[in-house]
Amino acid sequence: MICQDMMVEGVHFDLDYFSAFDLGYKSLAVNLSDIAAMGALPHFAQVSLALPKKLNESWLDDFYKGMTSLADDFHMQVAGGDLATSPDRLVVDVSVHGSCENPLTRKGAKPGDLLLCSGPLGLSFTGMTALQKKLAGFDTAKERHLRPKPRLDLVSHLQKHHTRIHALMDCSDGLVNDALLLRPAGGGFHLFAENLPLHTESQSLAVDLHINPQDIVLWGGEDYELLMAIHPEDYEYFPGWKMIGQFTEDPRVFVTHADHHEEIKEFKGWKHFSN
Amino acid sequence: MICQDMMVEGVHFDLDYFSAFDLGYKSLAVNLSDIAAMGALPHFAQVSLALPKKLNESWLDDFYKGMTSLADDFHMQVAGGDLATSPDRLVVDVSVHGSCENPLTRKGAKPGDLLLCSGPLGLSFTGMTALQKKLAGFDTAKERHLRPKPRLDLVSHLQKHHTRIHALMDCSDGLVNDALLLRPAGGGFHLFAENLPLHTESQSLAVDLHINPQDIVLWGGEDYELLMAIHPEDYEYFPGWKMIGQFTEDPRVFVTHADHHEEIKEFKGWKHFSN
Repeated sequence: MICQDMMVEGVHFDLDYFSAFDLGYKSLAVNLSDIAAMGALPHFAQVSLALPKKLNESWLDDFYKGMTSLADDFHMQVAGGDLATSPDRLVVDVSVHGSCENPLTRKGAKPGDLLLCSGPLGLSFTGMTALQKKLAGFDTAKERHLRPKPRLDLVSHLQKHHTRIHALMDCSDGLVNDALLLRPAGGGFHLFAENLPLHTESQSLAVDLHINPQDIVLWGGEDYELLMAIHPEDYEYFPGWKMIGQFTEDPRVFVTHADHHEEIKEFKGWKHFSN
Repeated sequence: MICQDMMVEGVHFDLDYFSAFDLGYKSLAVNLSDIAAMGALPHFAQVSLALPKKLNESWLDDFYKGMTSLADDFHMQVAGGDLATSPDRLVVDVSVHGSCENPLTRKGAKPGDLLLCSGPLGLSFTGMTALQKKLAGFDTAKERHLRPKPRLDLVSHLQKHHTRIHALMDCSDGLVNDALLLRPAGGGFHLFAENLPLHTESQSLAVDLHINPQDIVLWGGEDYELLMAIHPEDYEYFPGWKMIGQFTEDPRVFVTHADHHEEIKEFKGWKHFSN
C-alpha cells in the first residue's frame, strides 16, 4: 500500500513556528499515521519539495534530518523524490510504502458498535493556537502539533486482534468529521460527553480563550490518534483505548451528557474556530 | 523503480496555454520518460495536486482525462494520491512505478563512445516560444511542448541490446546540459554540427526571431527524446537513432563543424534564452 499526503505552506503549516526539522518530521508522520490506520508497517518514503528561494541548503538539511529522525525509529529509508523550484510557497509531498497481512479499513462499523479512541483529541489544535497566539506553556500541545506521533506502536496489537476490528482510521480532520466517515451506512453516532479525551492543556486553553473545551475535542484536527469501531463485547481486548461513543441506526449525531442529548446539526471544517 | 517529478505553475508550465488535459498528459509523460530512460516499463502512477480555487471540478476531470489517456496507452493505472488546497499556484507531483530486467543508467560512457539521439531536439522549446509569443503555425512543436511522447516505444529494443548500451538518459534539460551528465568521468564531448537533429519548425522559428537555430538544439529542453552512449562498432544495432556526437578524454566540449571546432565554455540553463 502507498499513502501520499501533500502539505502546502499557509494551508497546512506556518513557517513562522515550524522549524525545518519539525516540518520534515511532521510531513513523514502524517503519512505514517495513514499506514498505522490500516494496521500496516512502513518500508520506505519518497519526498518531493517545491522549494522557494527563501529556504537555503541548511534549511533543507534540517528538513531531511527531521524526516530521517522519525524514519530511523521505524527502520525505514527516505528513498528519494524530486526537488523543484517554487517562486513563493513551500510545498511538501511525501509518499510512504507499507504493507501488512490483514489490511484494516474504514468500512465495516455496525449500529451498536463502540467508538474507541487511542488517545487525547484536540491537543494539536491547542498547540497550534498557542503557537499562533505566542502563548507561553502548552508544551505538550505544541509538541503534538509540530511532531505528531503516528500510532505505529499499536499495529502489532491491531494485527493480533484484526478480526475484532470492524473499522479503523486515524483522526486527522477532527473527531466529528472523522467519525462521520466511520459510521455505518445510513447510520449516525453518539459521543459520550463525559468520556471525551480532553487534555488538561486543552482545558487551560479553553479557559484562557473563553471557548467551550468540548469544541476543541469535537472539531480540533491533526491529532493522528486512531479511531476504531468494535462490538461492545470486544472492549476488553483493547485496554488503554477510550470508549468515546457508539454507532447507531439513527442517522443523527449526538453528544450524550449524563442528563441530556445535544444534537450536532452543523458540521464544521476543522479550522472553523481557528480565526 | 520509482520516478517522481514535481511541476510548479509559473516555473514548469503556464496555464495560459496549458489546458487541463494537456497538463495531465504532460505531468505523466515526463515521468514515463524517466522510466523509458532506464529501459523500463511502467506499472502505475500516483498523483498529488495542490489545487487553487481558480480551478474547478471540471478542470480536475479534464486533468485526469489527460493523464489516463496516456496511461491507457501503456495499460497502466493512475492509482491515487492526494488533493490539497493551494492559495494560489497549482503544483502537480506525479510518481510512476515501473520495472525491468536490465536497468540502464547514466553512468558508463567511455571516451570514444558515440552519442546517439532518438529524435529531434529543440522542438519543445520551439513550441513553448510559439505559444508564449502567440505565433500561428508551429503545430508539431506546440504539440511536442504540450504533450511530449515518452519513448517507451524504444524499450523492448533497448532491452534486447542492453549489453551494447554504455549509458542512457532522457534529454529534458537541453542537449549540452544532459550530455554533460552522460560524459565519462573527467571527459568531455564533441557534438557534430551537421548531424544535430534540428526540426524544420525550429529552423523557421530561428529565422522569425533572428536567433541561431543551433542554439535551439543545444539548449532547448523538455524534448524527452533519449540520449545514449555506445561503442562506435555497435551503431548498426540502433537504426533510426541519430549519431550526434562523440565522447572524449579531453574534458572540453566542442561543436564540430566541417571546417572548425567551436568550444562551448559557458554552460547555460535550459531557459537561458527564453526571455
